[in-house]
Amino acid sequence: MTTTTRPIELRSDNSAGTAPEIIDAVVAANTGSTLAYGGDDWSARLRARAAEVFEHPDLTVFPVLTGTAANALSLSALCPPWGAVLCHETAHIIRNECGATSLFGGGAVMRGLPGAHYRLDDASLQLAFGSTNWGDPHHSQPAALSLTNPTDFGTVYSPQQVADLAAIARSRGMRVHIDGARIANAIAAIGCTPAEMTWRAGVDVVSLGATKNGAMTTDAIVCFDPAIAEQLTYRVKRAGQVASKMRFQSAQLDAYLTDGLWLRLAHQANTAMARLAAGLADLGVGFIEYPEANIAYLHIDDARADLLEDANLLFYRIAPGVIRFVTSFATTLAEVDDVLERVHAVLA
Amino acid sequence: MTTTTRPIELRSDNSAGTAPEIIDAVVAANTGSTLAYGGDDWSARLRARAAEVFEHPDLTVFPVLTGTAANALSLSALCPPWGAVLCHETAHIIRNECGATSLFGGGAVMRGLPGAHYRLDDASLQLAFGSTNWGDPHHSQPAALSLTNPTDFGTVYSPQQVADLAAIARSRGMRVHIDGARIANAIAAIGCTPAEMTWRAGVDVVSLGATKNGAMTTDAIVCFDPAIAEQLTYRVKRAGQVASKMRFQSAQLDAYLTDGLWLRLAHQANTAMARLAAGLADLGVGFIEYPEANIAYLHIDDARADLLEDANLLFYRIAPGVIRFVTSFATTLAEVDDVLERVHAVLA
Amino acid sequence: MTTTTRPIELRSDNSAGTAPEIIDAVVAANTGSTLAYGGDDWSARLRARAAEVFEHPDLTVFPVLTGTAANALSLSALCPPWGAVLCHETAHIIRNECGATSLFGGGAVMRGLPGAHYRLDDASLQLAFGSTNWGDPHHSQPAALSLTNPTDFGTVYSPQQVADLAAIARSRGMRVHIDGARIANAIAAIGCTPAEMTWRAGVDVVSLGATKNGAMTTDAIVCFDPAIAEQLTYRVKRAGQVASKMRFQSAQLDAYLTDGLWLRLAHQANTAMARLAAGLADLGVGFIEYPEANIAYLHIDDARADLLEDANLLFYRIAPGVIRFVTSFATTLAEVDDVLERVHAVLA
Amino acid sequence: MTTTTRPIELRSDNSAGTAPEIIDAVVAANTGSTLAYGGDDWSARLRARAAEVFEHPDLTVFPVLTGTAANALSLSALCPPWGAVLCHETAHIIRNECGATSLFGGGAVMRGLPGAHYRLDDASLQLAFGSTNWGDPHHSQPAALSLTNPTDFGTVYSPQQVADLAAIARSRGMRVHIDGARIANAIAAIGCTPAEMTWRAGVDVVSLGATKNGAMTTDAIVCFDPAIAEQLTYRVKRAGQVASKMRFQSAQLDAYLTDGLWLRLAHQANTAMARLAAGLADLGVGFIEYPEANIAYLHIDDARADLLEDANLLFYRIAPGVIRFVTSFATTLAEVDDVLERVHAVLA
Repeated sequence: MTTTTRPIELRSDNSAGTAPEIIDAVVAANTGSTLAYGGDDWSARLRARAAEVFEHPDLTVFPVLTGTAANALSLSALCPPWGAVLCHETAHIIRNECGATSLFGGGAVMRGLPGAHYRLDDASLQLAFGSTNWGDPHHSQPAALSLTNPTDFGTVYSPQQVADLAAIARSRGMRVHIDGARIANAIAAIGCTPAEMTWRAGVDVVSLGATKNGAMTTDAIVCFDPAIAEQLTYRVKRAGQVASKMRFQSAQLDAYLTDGLWLRLAHQANTAMARLAAGLADLGVGFIEYPEANIAYLHIDDARADLLEDANLLFYRIAPGVIRFVTSFATTLAEVDDVLERVHAVLA
Repeated sequence: MTTTTRPIELRSDNSAGTAPEIIDAVVAANTGSTLAYGGDDWSARLRARAAEVFEHPDLTVFPVLTGTAANALSLSALCPPWGAVLCHETAHIIRNECGATSLFGGGAVMRGLPGAHYRLDDASLQLAFGSTNWGDPHHSQPAALSLTNPTDFGTVYSPQQVADLAAIARSRGMRVHIDGARIANAIAAIGCTPAEMTWRAGVDVVSLGATKNGAMTTDAIVCFDPAIAEQLTYRVKRAGQVASKMRFQSAQLDAYLTDGLWLRLAHQANTAMARLAAGLADLGVGFIEYPEANIAYLHIDDARADLLEDANLLFYRIAPGVIRFVTSFATTLAEVDDVLERVHAVLA
Repeated sequence: MTTTTRPIELRSDNSAGTAPEIIDAVVAANTGSTLAYGGDDWSARLRARAAEVFEHPDLTVFPVLTGTAANALSLSALCPPWGAVLCHETAHIIRNECGATSLFGGGAVMRGLPGAHYRLDDASLQLAFGSTNWGDPHHSQPAALSLTNPTDFGTVYSPQQVADLAAIARSRGMRVHIDGARIANAIAAIGCTPAEMTWRAGVDVVSLGATKNGAMTTDAIVCFDPAIAEQLTYRVKRAGQVASKMRFQSAQLDAYLTDGLWLRLAHQANTAMARLAAGLADLGVGFIEYPEANIAYLHIDDARADLLEDANLLFYRIAPGVIRFVTSFATTLAEVDDVLERVHAVLA
Repeated sequence: MTTTTRPIELRSDNSAGTAPEIIDAVVAANTGSTLAYGGDDWSARLRARAAEVFEHPDLTVFPVLTGTAANALSLSALCPPWGAVLCHETAHIIRNECGATSLFGGGAVMRGLPGAHYRLDDASLQLAFGSTNWGDPHHSQPAALSLTNPTDFGTVYSPQQVADLAAIARSRGMRVHIDGARIANAIAAIGCTPAEMTWRAGVDVVSLGATKNGAMTTDAIVCFDPAIAEQLTYRVKRAGQVASKMRFQSAQLDAYLTDGLWLRLAHQANTAMARLAAGLADLGVGFIEYPEANIAYLHIDDARADLLEDANLLFYRIAPGVIRFVTSFATTLAEVDDVLERVHAVLA
């Protein structure tokens, strides 16, 4: 193994570039002048497309720059400043967004809950509810439930699991959000419809993470509740998340949702991971959770991790003995086989 | 005059598309995988380029989505939550950003001050200072000065004017920000260097408004003070303004600053407005302020404004008897002449 | 005139001590143990008393420490974070509370409006409404109207004036707040009922300023809308404004509202000012506004102001040529006559 | 046992009334007029007294209404908006203040850490530090350490324990706060000086919880760092926590700190609890933690808890099988013996 092997990217799906269909759409949108701030044809087309794809005529789409913005702004509209957002204790919103939810939420707090397989479950919510003094102003009141799907550890909630949790939350007057940084991977993995995974399961707002799945400079909030959308109109603007040349974001998102591109891109990433995981398992590698989408955490001792780095695999070392592999829409099956060969050589 | 004439865009410079050099740079950046969140070569190149263009080795550039984000985040780092941002009473930050500065500033307030020609001047600041109980916690303490250059009404501050105001502000311990949504137009109009207009004049942070001048999906904060930049690193992230695929913003900004493209684009817009304004003056049209950059507010009665709309000119009606024309990098001199002909026909 | 004359207090009504009935109530409340945080008998009694005094069975009273807390928390419940609070440009909330409303309002802004006699009027609101782009997320939306009654300059709104302004505000969906730091002085001056001045005139929430009128360590929010009160329950707690030994605040407020004490105390202050103003007018002193309650701003040149200070009158110098006299429940008519003698000596 | 027995208060130390010395001081302060907002003699005396008691000439005292205000405002000055406050997972600030720290902290978050005996220890901090990506803007940066002393579960940190934790925190640039809602009980229990427990141990700011220990309507922030105090001057005002008639708070606090009253009152509460705990232990009652100050959580089954309520003991039921007893300065040793008799009767 020499350093002349070609590096293979497994650090993150956001290390990949832009899908060709999406960059083409951006270039095509550069024609003529138009109204700023979403008053353009591309944004109108996006709204119609999203309504069709999600089978929900009244939804609103807000293109924003990042998943952090999508999450924090969505939650700020679902949770009052004195409320608590319930999420898994490993959720991106609580671990990786530097308090964005508390900033936009006016001091709202996040409560991280335990849950097997990095998913919240009935027991997680009962634990939280049991330790809540409902109606007591000394206690932050649970007001929004945020589910990350797939989780940051690569497990997936089924529509039924989402629906069950949403029902429990709604029984206490809470609203429901999905951090969908990789929602396309979850939908593609399950094979359900976008509607089944979201509003039909009781979800109010989804962070539609396009960037990690082939888009360029945009994510989006998809809101199924017109009253919440009315709030978001203002919240998104004052957060500096309304681009004047929005057409260049809307064109990306419109291409993303057209003809199932988003699900095809996600399927590619999932398929690459499925083949990779199967091969790694054959090589005896252990997983924190066997991957259900495009992320895997592997038990690899540090000496061997060094050797994998020497073999020009690009990945993150999470903790002693644990590394992370992420595939993307740009990961080819040939690359997967190449990875497996290099891992095999290292483990041998 | 029939409705078959081609529409001519004068609503705003952000109605224009993207400059060819910039869209080419975006396409060229779509190659291979790279580290996310600014750990890419394009972002490194941008930092070096900006340091060279501004002649300031220690500056930091933060690509953000919008001018509102650039302004509000910059000011949040310059003004404590109990402070006041002083600005002209017509400033964009106080009129058009839905309180973004107070959101990111943790409740900091804005104080709009009068000033001739839509510029702050010595008298504006003395007025504010005279009515301030310095050190009295009942009063929001002036802590940051924000100058919009060019102003929203098309007048320009010279580097000397900026320096004079900054010196007054600094004498009271205040920090200085430029809302540079159109800073390239001001620099091109004056013919000074970027350094002269900014840090050499005592400015700490600039909102570098690229979008209005040919960029696509990015603006940027340029920070000349490393301690403020350290703060901004966190503030920008938790505002959801750190794109994972930052290379596609950095590529835009790098192209923008390369070989003086930004000043050429601004010069085009300014030249178009200069020719337009001269022609309008010849036709007897009056101006709120004679344009020094690429924006003009015209005295046109409402009946004639209707006719100008019929003549397929695209512009905003600001108030009874007042309309606004804005030129952009995409406005051609032929279009200007066409506009003048149509105005002539209407006024005749 | 020697410096051995007794000083006479005209600086502010909050320079006075506590009314005897109120300090007696505090001492009497120090008996036995009780539930904290308002679960005590004094707080229950206060609620019943306030409901009776304001003739509104569903009101809620929140004892808080200060007028600033009462104002900012009230407004935070009436105005969303992206909204604007409309008030007179000289209002205490915009001039003297260090941005408290923007802090508790999550970045909500205040818009100061002109208005004759330091009161807002129909023209003030029409001006604000005319320059608002309703429904445009670039513009902070007027959402709450805050009236200071009496104004900080000693003029008073009649119930009819309050009702007229509230009706205009409500026609645009706005909610209405009274900064009643001296509301008792206004009610006593007009001779109306508390209900007429507040909820019958369309007011949602009142800051009931007890401290300036004889209380010791408490002000209060009086809320006429149960849905707003539900919000305030949490907002007041997380602001650290729910005292554990609330009985000692409730006892003050209960005594204050019992048998018209609050109106008697205010009447004393008003009567003292009426006699003082009449006497000053006889002496040829000019007023910024002839006082309608217990505050007066006088035209006194600076040399004479020096002499008044030498004569051991305690008052504030507001600007060159302008001083302020405020009377309180503790100002005696003998003191008023003494003040007039000293002024006469100085002016002679 | 009949219901005619006199109720005995064990719910909370804030159920007690005011200590006689303190109510006398309030009454005595009601003399004459004075400057508002702390410009009075009582506030000056308090500053001198606190400087002497804490042996720190440069400290600043800010009287505020509640412990929640003291905690949240202190922490807002020690932790930037993008920072994290580290505290025990059972801390009052994270469990019982409805997010006040995140509100005043501008979105700062709290991270609850485990720790034996409800105290943080070296391992707690190493766990937090180990899972922190220092300098990575995706992660809230630990910036302030908040220790509750005594803890909400009745255990106490020694000055050495505080100093050790503070040193670890300071080694990472963090600042240190003590939630001293019952700090007098901790100091009295240990027998150290106030200085040893606070600034000599590396503490920047203390919430001086007077209310729970005999004061009436005031707590206070004691700040040992002049730069932090400068910030607090504004933060406290805009939070509506600067009473205009501050003398009535300062008089309470001055009496509280005079001639060791605060430590005597705390000693009474501690002594009552010590006798109570010893007696309960003799009766075979188990403790969650054996009380080191004036709080005890007891293992009492629910049927017996019902009987204790029937016996007219006033206490809180925390969870199935767990009740809480709190003694206060007002708890007499005779009452303790009476409690023990009633418990004995119930357990027999």
